[in-house]
Amino acid sequence: MKIIVAGYSHGDFQVDIKNADSIRQLYQSIGSFDAVVATTGKVHFGSLPEMTADHYAIGLQDKLMGQVNLVLMGMQYINSQGSFTLTSGILGSDPIRYGSSASMVNGALNSFVKAAAIELPKGIRINVVSPTVLAESMTAYGDYFHGFMPVPATSVALAYSKSVEGAQTGQVYKVGY
Amino acid sequence: MKIIVAGYSHGDFQVDIKNADSIRQLYQSIGSFDAVVATTGKVHFGSLPEMTADHYAIGLQDKLMGQVNLVLMGMQYINSQGSFTLTSGILGSDPIRYGSSASMVNGALNSFVKAAAIELPKGIRINVVSPTVLAESMTAYGDYFHGFMPVPATSVALAYSKSVEGAQTGQVYKVGY
Repeated sequence: MKIIVAGYSHGDFQVDIKNADSIRQLYQSIGSFDAVVATTGKVHFGSLPEMTADHYAIGLQDKLMGQVNLVLMGMQYINSQGSFTLTSGILGSDPIRYGSSASMVNGALNSFVKAAAIELPKGIRINVVSPTVLAESMTAYGDYFHGFMPVPATSVALAYSKSVEGAQTGQVYKVGY
Repeated sequence: MKIIVAGYSHGDFQVDIKNADSIRQLYQSIGSFDAVVATTGKVHFGSLPEMTADHYAIGLQDKLMGQVNLVLMGMQYINSQGSFTLTSGILGSDPIRYGSSASMVNGALNSFVKAAAIELPKGIRINVVSPTVLAESMTAYGDYFHGFMPVPATSVALAYSKSVEGAQTGQVYKVGY
């Protein structure tokens, strides 16, 4: 198995998931592949009374539509029986202060994946991994996640593996909650 | 109790929920109020392989951010202890062909409401009503909803009443499923 890493500024290939042309270029450069795992996406954190439509647009364009565009455009390039695995997060169902955009985007991703699963052609599957806060992120985000039990990134990695190597589709794989 | 009806082209007031200025103008014209019930919102229906980011943008700007903007801007005008009630729908959890945008938007609304509920000031509440297909819509949409048990609009109206007159917040009131 060959794993290709693509990132905004790191990895084997560079891609800006907010830019459809950049995604198309990525897929054309890679050629044939069996699975896409998206573990990226930005959202704006801010208190509800200070949030504007522009703040929500960041998450909708980046974490939501960035990942959805990876699916829409990847459908044309991915091998039959391939799979897409996206990333949402615990805030979709267990919200925190300042996290309304993350909640919105995570809820959208979970429901999109359930819907896309029944329409994907060529036996292509799609799932989404919804982790709680990572142990590795507690230094940066711990103050927002009081009382949440963090999980190590290696536990979340198992869920991606289950999605790629397993046979289910349309699933929300919760990790750590 | 006085009920004010606002619509794009009908009702006591006209409003385009895609336009922030139009929403602000609506709230300024109405003055003081205790509850907002939003029962509107457009999404694009289309088969997944034919859907583009632009198709999803219709639902994100209209049904999702239109309703969210009613909350963000209405927060400044609504009376203390007031309430917002939004509308999502069954496709957030029980998808149909051609409905991936509706699923995405409904999931986003359900999760946004749970998150907004814990941050709203002045004792303001927020819930979302998530109905199955309406009996009144079966002539138009029945072909998309085979096997779904439709409910009359009067049943859905009860959920709006529960949200406005009840005391709960952050709830997704499912109707008919």
